[in-house]
Amino acid sequence: MASFRTSSGDPLTHGNSRVKEARKLARRSFRASAGLFLADGPKAVEGALAVEGCVVEIFATPTAAEQYADLLGAAPVTLVDDRALASLSDSVSPAGLVAVCRLLDRPLAEVLSGGPRLVVICADVRDPGNAGTVIRCADAAGADAVILAGDAVDLHNPKTIRASVGSVFHLPVALERDPVAAVRAAQAAGLGVLAADMDGRNLFEADDLLAKPTAWLMGNEAWGLPDDLRAAADEVVSIPIYGGAESLNLATAAAVCLYASARAQR
Amino acid sequence: MASFRTSSGDPLTHGNSRVKEARKLARRSFRASAGLFLADGPKAVEGALAVEGCVVEIFATPTAAEQYADLLGAAPVTLVDDRALASLSDSVSPAGLVAVCRLLDRPLAEVLSGGPRLVVICADVRDPGNAGTVIRCADAAGADAVILAGDAVDLHNPKTIRASVGSVFHLPVALERDPVAAVRAAQAAGLGVLAADMDGRNLFEADDLLAKPTAWLMGNEAWGLPDDLRAAADEVVSIPIYGGAESLNLATAAAVCLYASARAQR
Repeated sequence: MASFRTSSGDPLTHGNSRVKEARKLARRSFRASAGLFLADGPKAVEGALAVEGCVVEIFATPTAAEQYADLLGAAPVTLVDDRALASLSDSVSPAGLVAVCRLLDRPLAEVLSGGPRLVVICADVRDPGNAGTVIRCADAAGADAVILAGDAVDLHNPKTIRASVGSVFHLPVALERDPVAAVRAAQAAGLGVLAADMDGRNLFEADDLLAKPTAWLMGNEAWGLPDDLRAAADEVVSIPIYGGAESLNLATAAAVCLYASARAQR
Repeated sequence: MASFRTSSGDPLTHGNSRVKEARKLARRSFRASAGLFLADGPKAVEGALAVEGCVVEIFATPTAAEQYADLLGAAPVTLVDDRALASLSDSVSPAGLVAVCRLLDRPLAEVLSGGPRLVVICADVRDPGNAGTVIRCADAAGADAVILAGDAVDLHNPKTIRASVGSVFHLPVALERDPVAAVRAAQAAGLGVLAADMDGRNLFEADDLLAKPTAWLMGNEAWGLPDDLRAAADEVVSIPIYGGAESLNLATAAAVCLYASARAQR
C-alpha cells in the first residue's frame, strides 16, 4: 500500500465507508469478529508499528501525518479529516493518529514457552485502567508475559490500551477463561504460583521464594481471589500493611509484588 | 444533637434547605468557604467517625441507617429519602450514607512535627484518583504524612476521598502551594528528600539512603519534576526499568518507592 493514499486525494470524511467500518471497532463484539482493534495516539501507534504484522492501516489527519512523519515512516497512512479522526478516537483531545491493528493476544502455551521467569496472572480483572496499568508495571519490572484469566476486561478496550502506555505491544498477553487452568499451565511451565492475598508469607521475608521463576496471581478488584484459586497456588504471599489501610489496590499491589520479584531475581 | 432527628419526623427531601446546603459541597469553592466536605459511603463515614470532631452531621436513608446502625452508633444522623441522598453522592450506586465533615488538611509544620520517618510530597498531582491512591499507599506502607504541594487536585474532591478508601482519615495530609517550601520544610524536619525521577541512583541499591528518615518527592503525572524542584532534593532515586516501558504511573511508582523505604527502615 502506498503512503498517504485516499480514494480521491482528499482526506476521508466521517461518513466514508472505511471510516464507518473502522468506527465499529469501538465495540468489543465487533473487535472479536473482525480480529482488529484501534490503537489511538502516537505512543500506541509507535508501539504497534514495532510489532511485525500488527498494523493494518493508519488513519491520520493531514496535520498529524506531517507532525509524526518520522514515526510513520513507510507505514500505510490514510488521510482523514478532523471529525472523522475524532470519531475513531475515544480520547477527549485526539492526537490525530489512529491505527487499525490485528488483535494482540497470543495462545497461553506460547506465552509460557521459552522458560519464563516472571509472569502475572490477573483473575477476573474488571477495570480496563487497572488491566492496562498492570501490563505497564509487568513490562517495567521485566516480566515475560501477562495472562488475563477468567471473566476479564477486554485487552483491546481503548482504556486498557491507553493505560498500558505502549506496554501491550512490548510483552505477550494471553487470555484464558479458566483461571485454575492458567495456574496449572504456569506450574507446568516451571513457575511457582504465588497468590497475592492476605494472611500469607510476608513479601519482604520471602526472597527464597521470589528468586525462583514466579507467576504472580492477582485477584479481582472487589472480591480478591476465590478459595479454589487461592488453593491452586503454590504459596500465598502478602504485602505487609504497616498503617491503617486495609489493602492496596490491584495495580499498586501488582507493582510492589513484581518489583520485589525483579529485585530478588537479579 | 439527637440521633435520627428530622424536622418533621419524615425523611428530608431533595428540596429541603439543609440538603440543598450540603449539596453545594460538591463544589471546591464552596467546600473551601464552608470548611466542610462530604464523605460518601460506609467506608468513608466509618473513617470520618474515627477522627475526633470531624463529622458534623450524617445524612442517611432509613434503610441505610438501619443497615449501618452499629457503624453509626450515637452519631448525629439525619434521615433523607433516596433521591435526596443520591443528590449528595457522586457515586453511581450510592450506599445510602453521606457525612458532612470538617476539612482534613493540617498545617505543614504540624504534620512534620514529632520526628516523622516516612513522608510523601506530591508536587502538582492533578488526578484525584492518583492523589487518593498515593494517600492509600502511604498509609499502607506506614508513612507518617502526605503533603500535596503546588497546584494540586483538591484533597476533598469526592474522587480523592473515594480512591483513598478511608486513608485520608488515617494519616495527616498538609497542603503547601510552594513545592520548594515543602521540600525545605521536610529537610528542616530532619528528612532526606529523595526525588523519584529518571537518571538517579537505583532504588534497589540505595538501602543506606532509604533506611534514614525520608520524604519521597513525586512529580506531576505528565511532566514529572521541574528542574528547580529536582535540584532542591537531596538525592534523585530511580525505579529501575527492566523492560520496554518508559516509566511507571504516579501511584504505582509511589507504591514501589514507599515500600522500598518501609522495607529498609524495618
